[in-house]
Amino acid sequence: MSKWPKHVTIKEVGPRDGLQNEPTVIATEDKIVWINQLSKTGLTYIEITSFVHPKWIPQLADAFDVATNIERVPGVTYAALVPNQKGLEKALAAQVDEVSVFMSASETHNRKNINKSIDDTYSVLAEVVHEAKSAPKTVRGYLSAVFGCPYEGAVSVDQVISVSEKLFEMGIDELSFGDTIGVANPRQVEKVLDSLLKRFPKEKLAMHFHDTRGTALANVLVSLEMGITTFDSSLGGLGGCPYAPGASGNVATDDLLYMLCGMNISTGVDREQLTEAALFIQNKIGRTLNSHHLLAISSCCS
Amino acid sequence: MSKWPKHVTIKEVGPRDGLQNEPTVIATEDKIVWINQLSKTGLTYIEITSFVHPKWIPQLADAFDVATNIERVPGVTYAALVPNQKGLEKALAAQVDEVSVFMSASETHNRKNINKSIDDTYSVLAEVVHEAKSAPKTVRGYLSAVFGCPYEGAVSVDQVISVSEKLFEMGIDELSFGDTIGVANPRQVEKVLDSLLKRFPKEKLAMHFHDTRGTALANVLVSLEMGITTFDSSLGGLGGCPYAPGASGNVATDDLLYMLCGMNISTGVDREQLTEAALFIQNKIGRTLNSHHLLAISSCCS
Repeated sequence: MSKWPKHVTIKEVGPRDGLQNEPTVIATEDKIVWINQLSKTGLTYIEITSFVHPKWIPQLADAFDVATNIERVPGVTYAALVPNQKGLEKALAAQVDEVSVFMSASETHNRKNINKSIDDTYSVLAEVVHEAKSAPKTVRGYLSAVFGCPYEGAVSVDQVISVSEKLFEMGIDELSFGDTIGVANPRQVEKVLDSLLKRFPKEKLAMHFHDTRGTALANVLVSLEMGITTFDSSLGGLGGCPYAPGASGNVATDDLLYMLCGMNISTGVDREQLTEAALFIQNKIGRTLNSHHLLAISSCCS
Repeated sequence: MSKWPKHVTIKEVGPRDGLQNEPTVIATEDKIVWINQLSKTGLTYIEITSFVHPKWIPQLADAFDVATNIERVPGVTYAALVPNQKGLEKALAAQVDEVSVFMSASETHNRKNINKSIDDTYSVLAEVVHEAKSAPKTVRGYLSAVFGCPYEGAVSVDQVISVSEKLFEMGIDELSFGDTIGVANPRQVEKVLDSLLKRFPKEKLAMHFHDTRGTALANVLVSLEMGITTFDSSLGGLGGCPYAPGASGNVATDDLLYMLCGMNISTGVDREQLTEAALFIQNKIGRTLNSHHLLAISSCCS
């Protein structure tokens, strides 16, 4: 029974990756209450916001207020996404513990999202990473479209490796591999991880799955078998399609925790307190969120 | 890469297990059109109906008409559920290829569902199995609440083994192990299968997962790794909670097929034709069904 690890770190990305896709604007004070609840669940990592220009993500325009008004619980890393130098300056002023930079493994997806070629993105990120490391802060990278691109379709493993190498050369501490459109399957995850693990230490790799086609937890399972112990997730599946109940984005923290708890893999996260936090934000969003867990407890048939 | 099998048999239970939970009554001629579509997808096994008393499941009151009016495609096994001797007689008169009998691994669940103790159920099923085998027909067994009971909670592996032994002694050809309330996790599946595989040949075992908590495909994955190659599923996730979109019952055939195709595990099932059949029945049901696949293609965000 040694094929699964004993402990997994869950990195909660709901306040950033989840909320940024929600059309219902959540009040700053509600975000603060919610993040304070999350801080008490036993989660050790919360990505609390993104310091992007409010023009792009109005939902997160209160990044500075959120970051400076939450209660910082010792042992919890409070991270924020930064797209560039300007974002980094604000994040540092707000005294976040860690910053995240992001780019795509797909040329077209990168151009559509960041408005730059992959090559032109490197120099921007290198500067951000350098400054952040001098602050000194730890830096996380997000690589999106690792398992497929909405524009290009397949993304080659060589391309994933090549971009990953550049990011690690810049000095990032961890890289999170995103199945942005939720197309990955376990054999593909095994194949990609097999290549990655030949080049990078597993402690520096995190997986970021979406459950769009129902494969997220199967992909987590095969990642566990490959030795990965860090997973991103979003409470309640926040960030799924707001107009189609059940149409999932990020794998839900509560679903991930259900599986890991059942498998006796420790996470340090308390399920009851997590459910309380899920119900709080669900109430503020004003509709049943997309996690299987929340759908099951809100359903007549469970 | 030999830890996953090359071929999997999908047993489509939508017309029986799916429809029986749907409040929208589907017209007999629509069921026939739908089953005829399913017959052309490459599926080799379709559970088309249940010969239970119409008082219990009005949706399937047309069992005889459905069974006798569908086109029988060579190579496809058309099966039906039978609860007792009377149901068996009707099923035999309708010339189904295989019959299924069912009971629960949990005493309370068995009493609530069948109105008999587990011990009293054996004699009823033994007679049905004996008659069916003399017909001669193959017989499939369904064992429900294998991974947890809505009334009793945990169900012991010893109890599962004990009931399974009785059923195999009666002469059933295959036994399908149901996670009726969708609570199973991969470690539990591994544990239960480990015990089962010590006693029964893997060719006689099928898994029947529900996706209520999002773990169905992860449970399929670990079953594949244990050597299981037969899985039940319901097209479109038919049979989930009709009042909570996304709240899943049976794992969806289209979600299962998505994962298996991506993993290069052959099933013989054509995804396009299967999607056509899914859209047909979704249209008749009149709401977006619960499979991730159908939610993704109906969503703005996929």
